[in-house]
Amino acid sequence: MSGYTTEERGAPNSLEYRLYIKDSSGKPVSAMHDIPMKSAAGDGVYNMVVEVPRWSNAKIEIDLKSGLNPLKQDVKKGKLRYVANVFPHHGYIWNYGAIPQTWEDPNHVDGNTGCKGDADPIDVCEIGQKIHARGSVVQVKVLGVFAMIDEGETDWKVMAIDVNDPLAENLNDIHDVEKVMPGFLAATVEWFKCYKMPDGKPANKFAFEDKPKDREFAENIISGCHDSWAKLMAGETPADGIVLSNTGLGNGSSIDQAAAQAIIDQNPALGETQPLPDDVNKWHYVSLK
Amino acid sequence: MSGYTTEERGAPNSLEYRLYIKDSSGKPVSAMHDIPMKSAAGDGVYNMVVEVPRWSNAKIEIDLKSGLNPLKQDVKKGKLRYVANVFPHHGYIWNYGAIPQTWEDPNHVDGNTGCKGDADPIDVCEIGQKIHARGSVVQVKVLGVFAMIDEGETDWKVMAIDVNDPLAENLNDIHDVEKVMPGFLAATVEWFKCYKMPDGKPANKFAFEDKPKDREFAENIISGCHDSWAKLMAGETPADGIVLSNTGLGNGSSIDQAAAQAIIDQNPALGETQPLPDDVNKWHYVSLK
Repeated sequence: MSGYTTEERGAPNSLEYRLYIKDSSGKPVSAMHDIPMKSAAGDGVYNMVVEVPRWSNAKIEIDLKSGLNPLKQDVKKGKLRYVANVFPHHGYIWNYGAIPQTWEDPNHVDGNTGCKGDADPIDVCEIGQKIHARGSVVQVKVLGVFAMIDEGETDWKVMAIDVNDPLAENLNDIHDVEKVMPGFLAATVEWFKCYKMPDGKPANKFAFEDKPKDREFAENIISGCHDSWAKLMAGETPADGIVLSNTGLGNGSSIDQAAAQAIIDQNPALGETQPLPDDVNKWHYVSLK
Repeated sequence: MSGYTTEERGAPNSLEYRLYIKDSSGKPVSAMHDIPMKSAAGDGVYNMVVEVPRWSNAKIEIDLKSGLNPLKQDVKKGKLRYVANVFPHHGYIWNYGAIPQTWEDPNHVDGNTGCKGDADPIDVCEIGQKIHARGSVVQVKVLGVFAMIDEGETDWKVMAIDVNDPLAENLNDIHDVEKVMPGFLAATVEWFKCYKMPDGKPANKFAFEDKPKDREFAENIISGCHDSWAKLMAGETPADGIVLSNTGLGNGSSIDQAAAQAIIDQNPALGETQPLPDDVNKWHYVSLK
């Protein structure tokens, strides 16, 4: 257990909904800046902030552009964004989230993909059997990484597993995944290629002929994104609207606990969960041919 | 809207949970015997009692062996039964249920399959986009039928769609399903073949080389099951433990509203929903090869 807790504001499934993370002492933290990238649990173990529980549809993300970077549902044309179910899949097929203290620098052209970063923390697909709650901080073992290319930007997708999953000891590198979960990596590629097609967008592409890279490669990519985050925090890279406030780094952007709680308290109180839109349960059929 | 309502007893997800159905006047009905097989909504429209909402796992069934035939979760070796998620599927992939006033007679060898019936009402897979609540009565258009063979018994699986689904007007026979929902019929066969394999059972088989029969064939099968049910009710077939009590048929097994409510009131009150077991969210990997 990570010891982090959450504080929700606004009505779940409304435009006002926000989820803030607090540490074990109850102090608000930035989901992006304060939670360490690496867990103390061991070598190659990273922290993951869960944004989307498996088999759900709401596209929730760490909001880089507001104070303390709460989790917030993506909005498009004034409406909350839900990812379509592309047959045979139901919602996201992993617990989906981000590794804190990483950033895919949009000013940096990646040497592997030839594309710039997408200006977000690095994404993680956690493939364990448990459904993790939105906002939970999970210790994951990194297994590999896919290089998705989304509208010309590099958007790394780290494959990882909860260190406490019963299968974690059998999964130590990307090649183990196909042995233990046959078809899951191919389904992952298919999912990312197709998920925006029901909205009329083209299929996403992947570098490396749709193949994942191994654990060592993945850890190097994450390390590079950690360096990009550090430069962002140090002011060496323009923040371009990203809010750097934090409660634990002791740098020029740090704020005290009262100021942090005041940011949370600007939001409306936690309200009643709103119903999901009817069409969220629709299955969409798309073809990659 | 069917006008039926439900009354739940016991704690959901516990051994005591029961769901009874009432008509629009509040009178308890038998889910098996009182709800008409055919809906008044039109030709080829049947009533379906939803036992399992899409994307859920609890194996809930009409209980033929207790008064008024409430919905009840199947129990095996003293434990509530949940269907395993077989990758890439999540739970049941349709709204699953039964057509009332039908019965697959275990004394009758089917001329098509050479197998006896499974002693249950005929099963329906409803393929519309809405998730229907457990215990709801849905008007469905029958499209076709698969002949599953489960441990030597015929277990027909009727394919149907909610008449109010936006796609219902485009779906009039089984051949339309592949055009509108490519892959869904194949996934249905795969699902039924595999779903017991994580429990160590062999794959189920299908008659007719795994192919579905069309709407006309399906309606004939349903009609035959309706005749079997009528013979059961008339005492021409041994009931063998099946409770025939009803509130609307005006036959020797009919009971009045007070007696029906007394059956419901023998159960404990509706309790707090119990948590699902942890492993219900596990994905299982099986191979048909």
